[in-house]
Amino acid sequence: MGSAEDAVDGYRPWSEVTPDAARRLLVAAVEAFAERGYHATTTRDIAGRAGMSPAALYIHYKTKEELLHRISRIGHDKALEILTTSADGPGSPADRLDAAVRSFVRWHAAHHTTARVVQYELDALAPEHRAEIVELRRQSDAAVRRILADGVAAGEFDVPDLPGTTLAVLSLCIDVARWFNVAGQRTPDEVGGLYADLVLRMVAARPAPAR
Amino acid sequence: MGSAEDAVDGYRPWSEVTPDAARRLLVAAVEAFAERGYHATTTRDIAGRAGMSPAALYIHYKTKEELLHRISRIGHDKALEILTTSADGPGSPADRLDAAVRSFVRWHAAHHTTARVVQYELDALAPEHRAEIVELRRQSDAAVRRILADGVAAGEFDVPDLPGTTLAVLSLCIDVARWFNVAGQRTPDEVGGLYADLVLRMVAARPAPAR
Repeated sequence: MGSAEDAVDGYRPWSEVTPDAARRLLVAAVEAFAERGYHATTTRDIAGRAGMSPAALYIHYKTKEELLHRISRIGHDKALEILTTSADGPGSPADRLDAAVRSFVRWHAAHHTTARVVQYELDALAPEHRAEIVELRRQSDAAVRRILADGVAAGEFDVPDLPGTTLAVLSLCIDVARWFNVAGQRTPDEVGGLYADLVLRMVAARPAPAR
Repeated sequence: MGSAEDAVDGYRPWSEVTPDAARRLLVAAVEAFAERGYHATTTRDIAGRAGMSPAALYIHYKTKEELLHRISRIGHDKALEILTTSADGPGSPADRLDAAVRSFVRWHAAHHTTARVVQYELDALAPEHRAEIVELRRQSDAAVRRILADGVAAGEFDVPDLPGTTLAVLSLCIDVARWFNVAGQRTPDEVGGLYADLVLRMVAARPAPAR
């Protein structure tokens, strides 16, 4: 797990973090948090995994929470970017929903270790950081809801409960991070394809009625 | 969270654990593991939460892992019971799938703190305990797959990927434990109803064709 997570969709994990020492520390923090949990991990553990001294860590990050916040922020920014690209992209509502689910699932499968930390350690964020992340999650929810609402307006989707279905679609995709196993039988692409089909069924997608 | 989790479907959480001191310790362990993670929790923390001494804890549980194993075993036994009751119950495949999803979702919503510990701390189990739990999960998967296969055989469901759809149905229900909030807008029953509808759509449920 961890540092073995591959580039996917042209995204190299943590490439936005510089300098190299700061990036190595972030990767080490993701691995440590995923293995032992945030509260059982010390900044000394993280520095050790990165082959650095605790003093070297403090040059880049003042606290353990700053590391978690940075990981969570990068993960949530990427999730929002994936969903808004699909929501505001070309094609019918069904095409856009298919693209959103495929790319969101691929990200959660390929980056499952990071995604688990991002999803399961929200309670450990400082209140102001948590509020910032909650706002990014609200925007991700709004992007998916926008696609579903467009499909309903076009007569292509049947969605009796718009907020509930939005929640279920996001939840289904996010939980891929929990069960996905690189040694398992399906690639991230294959899971993406299966899930896009299941989600189009959830909204009863059909071609737009003739005018 | 934690001890405030209510009885649901006639099930009083941990009522199978006796004596009372052993039950109080188990409830304290669930709360501590959920708040801080398994690795950051000590047996001293757990005893303290239960208002007992570490020595009193050791009368009932030799190790912290024994507590986690007991929690995981009870949670998985209950999940399997819920799913097999629906899988082997009366009614059409659609009725049985509806019942399975409703009751499985209700359990994960009402017992979300326990369910999170059960789902997220699997890696902390000793190898022999982990193998035992993996076997229970295999049986839960088989119960859902049985309903889907019966529906396909009866011409009532359209399921191109049986193992993949089984995995997705279970994943959707399990992830309720992550996002469910007792202060939120939906009751466990309401989420169960919404999800049963969405899952019946995923399998394209329709009445059996006339013979």
